[in-house]
Amino acid sequence: MKSIQQYKLSDLTHGLDVAIKGNPDCIVTGVSPIQASHAGHITFLTNASYKKYLKTTDASIVILSEADAIECDKTAVICKNPYYIYAKIAEHFKTNKNKISGIHPSAIIGENCVIDKTANIGAHCVIGNGVNIGAEAQLDASVTIYDNVQIGARVHLSSGVVIGSDGFGFANEKGIWHDVPQLGTVIIGDDVSIGANTVVDRGALENTIIENGAKLDNLIQVAHNVHIGAHTIIAGCVAIAGSTKIGAHCMIGGGTCFAGHITICDKVIITGMTAVTKSITEPGMYSSGIVGAVPNLEFRKNNARFHRLDNLIERVKHLESELKAIKEGDHHE
Amino acid sequence: MKSIQQYKLSDLTHGLDVAIKGNPDCIVTGVSPIQASHAGHITFLTNASYKKYLKTTDASIVILSEADAIECDKTAVICKNPYYIYAKIAEHFKTNKNKISGIHPSAIIGENCVIDKTANIGAHCVIGNGVNIGAEAQLDASVTIYDNVQIGARVHLSSGVVIGSDGFGFANEKGIWHDVPQLGTVIIGDDVSIGANTVVDRGALENTIIENGAKLDNLIQVAHNVHIGAHTIIAGCVAIAGSTKIGAHCMIGGGTCFAGHITICDKVIITGMTAVTKSITEPGMYSSGIVGAVPNLEFRKNNARFHRLDNLIERVKHLESELKAIKEGDHHE
Amino acid sequence: MKSIQQYKLSDLTHGLDVAIKGNPDCIVTGVSPIQASHAGHITFLTNASYKKYLKTTDASIVILSEADAIECDKTAVICKNPYYIYAKIAEHFKTNKNKISGIHPSAIIGENCVIDKTANIGAHCVIGNGVNIGAEAQLDASVTIYDNVQIGARVHLSSGVVIGSDGFGFANEKGIWHDVPQLGTVIIGDDVSIGANTVVDRGALENTIIENGAKLDNLIQVAHNVHIGAHTIIAGCVAIAGSTKIGAHCMIGGGTCFAGHITICDKVIITGMTAVTKSITEPGMYSSGIVGAVPNLEFRKNNARFHRLDNLIERVKHLESELKAIKEGDHHE
Repeated sequence: MKSIQQYKLSDLTHGLDVAIKGNPDCIVTGVSPIQASHAGHITFLTNASYKKYLKTTDASIVILSEADAIECDKTAVICKNPYYIYAKIAEHFKTNKNKISGIHPSAIIGENCVIDKTANIGAHCVIGNGVNIGAEAQLDASVTIYDNVQIGARVHLSSGVVIGSDGFGFANEKGIWHDVPQLGTVIIGDDVSIGANTVVDRGALENTIIENGAKLDNLIQVAHNVHIGAHTIIAGCVAIAGSTKIGAHCMIGGGTCFAGHITICDKVIITGMTAVTKSITEPGMYSSGIVGAVPNLEFRKNNARFHRLDNLIERVKHLESELKAIKEGDHHE
Repeated sequence: MKSIQQYKLSDLTHGLDVAIKGNPDCIVTGVSPIQASHAGHITFLTNASYKKYLKTTDASIVILSEADAIECDKTAVICKNPYYIYAKIAEHFKTNKNKISGIHPSAIIGENCVIDKTANIGAHCVIGNGVNIGAEAQLDASVTIYDNVQIGARVHLSSGVVIGSDGFGFANEKGIWHDVPQLGTVIIGDDVSIGANTVVDRGALENTIIENGAKLDNLIQVAHNVHIGAHTIIAGCVAIAGSTKIGAHCMIGGGTCFAGHITICDKVIITGMTAVTKSITEPGMYSSGIVGAVPNLEFRKNNARFHRLDNLIERVKHLESELKAIKEGDHHE
Repeated sequence: MKSIQQYKLSDLTHGLDVAIKGNPDCIVTGVSPIQASHAGHITFLTNASYKKYLKTTDASIVILSEADAIECDKTAVICKNPYYIYAKIAEHFKTNKNKISGIHPSAIIGENCVIDKTANIGAHCVIGNGVNIGAEAQLDASVTIYDNVQIGARVHLSSGVVIGSDGFGFANEKGIWHDVPQLGTVIIGDDVSIGANTVVDRGALENTIIENGAKLDNLIQVAHNVHIGAHTIIAGCVAIAGSTKIGAHCMIGGGTCFAGHITICDKVIITGMTAVTKSITEPGMYSSGIVGAVPNLEFRKNNARFHRLDNLIERVKHLESELKAIKEGDHHE
């Protein structure tokens, strides 16, 4: 990553809860990853599997924990949460940090909207009627917002996001599906981030709600009436069916699907590609299924064995009864 | 859900096959869910798990079955299909029901299109050449339709829908993938609904077809040459690989994937996150895999046990031969 | 598929490595699939399950292998790679092959872009600042490209594609998620094809890279720092988590998910809906889980049996110890 910015290290760490081992006046010319860094750059160490690069990195400064700092012969920025400190320092190296705010002339804005003057609405966005958008909200290009949606302050919506489309509600009468009107809307709290091409449907009767500080990745499906708690983070390609409630401070792995009408309590971690079919009432880490790619031949054998489980159970039952007969025979002898 | 509309109950049920227990002249000021209703509102009961709210709801009127009506001390709208009756009544409370039709000036329309004058095309839609769009079709903002696609009457396409993109066809010659021209198009019948950011690819040689009354949710992948039967309903994040045919009156759960070149007969129900790898020839409900999130520790144990199944089978075989030897020993003694 | 073009067969095969059995001067009026062809049309046979149509097809000419040609009584175009030869011949029947190139007036182009004059940018595309787009690149309508993305020659991006959105990076400090600046960009090589509504995030520090000739289908999630090797083909709805590297000449089935920070070597085939959680270091075909839809009742039994595996193992252990006791009893007698 090329950059023309340069800073004194002590200016970058000003106000942050860190200790510097080495020269606080050294000049930092960029940020880069530990395994592919450059002289003059600052890097960070958080993932144990990258610790091997600590000795060989070309970076001049490393942000890391007190424990890891013992093995560091570069200038060290020592702190409790290196990834957070890195995030704060890296902000200085953003190239578009002075981006002006405003509404791009190609955006289409509906009637009766209240859009904070510090909000930024990108090219070709379409905003429906009666939409509220808070301070410093950032809608990237080609975001679509339907009528009456409320968007908090500092929300970031990436391109292709759709908020407030009709929920998927149909009533079957004699084999024909009839539209169920979707009369609710979507309420998005402050500091929410939503990734590209993610969809959040409007509620059927109540609203679909995403609470403050929640972070959603790309290509996620949030169905009608879903409630996502504060500071919950959801990775890409997750599908959340209608009326399901996910608590606060949860972490949801990519590709996971949630059944509808279930409730997940606070502080639940779900690993990737899990099928969550029932409510979860205790914090902790949850998973489902058989994961991990194996050679296709082994996979076929596993499938065959799995489908013969019934036969195996029968064989064990048979063994048990035969053994019982032998033992009883012994007793009778 | 706030509303300024209000109606006499008998006006709302006019023409519907219902019986009213209580005052047919009472005034209805809104619709709301049974667990969070308001005085003056009408609600409905269809899901057994919400029956507990029947005694406590603040709603003044409840739409419900004859069986449930026995326990209802409110004004009751008694019918065979409460959800359908609710859908019909709720239509009166839509706030945008008088929406005018027409083509938004920011939409781009190709050459030689035939667009019914009652169709509605939203802001920033892009319509290719030679496209037909039927009466009362509703394209929300930012829908993209490629050349020669045919869209029936009363079709509803949500924002971000893409219809008629090239199918995924490549021929490999000496390690390099070469484009296979996608010469078909997409034919969408009447009364079809397609959710936000869903994609329907054009056919390779034949057409991709979605028959009358089919309902597709958000973020669904419909590959080239797929055929979806009439009145089939498909939940979010389903992927249907090329040339697969799904029958009429099917119900497909969210996150399910279909292999290519298979045929699913009419009236098949597939539960969520199923991997459908072979044709299905009998109506019924089908599923795959191991679902249901369990604590991660249990999940790890399950995975380990699963991968030791082979060992278990060997141990059972060994027990069987030993037991046989013992019994034969008995006989020979 | 209707077409007004017609060609002499020998003109269509000019320059291709084929042998013609029959009349090379016959007139070809269109292309169609073997099971639904027309007199005067050319078709192809590659999939063994369609061989049954060879005798009954109405096509006048069939592209096929030498082995299959023995059973063909039509004019035959005999070659080693019938699907590739078909792809080359079918190009003549594309109706939009003379499409003019250029930038649609409704597209929004940022500052300091370098866009080859032969590139084609569709309606309502949004191109950020500092973007490079190579010769004959084709961006269909409503594609969004963020700042500084580089796109090679002959790249094809379908509608709704988003390239260069922020990677999903947040650092947690005291329960609150903080943005980690995404300072890299996306580099897309030559001859890459990306399907509708697919998203490719920009890198955090390094770049997200898609190498020459890679083909991506619709609704795919490519997270930050991912590296996709040359001539790798990826089917729809695949999710690739951050920093994962997929080698060259791989084939990835639809609905598959990759964990982050893993490496897949060259020439790996992954079947659909696999959960790839670890690196793969040997070429070959890999899969995971239990796939294949079965009747729901059987599925429920399988789930129950699976969760009783532990009990089965205990019963086998018990049998083993009892049998041991019996045998030792025999010895002591």
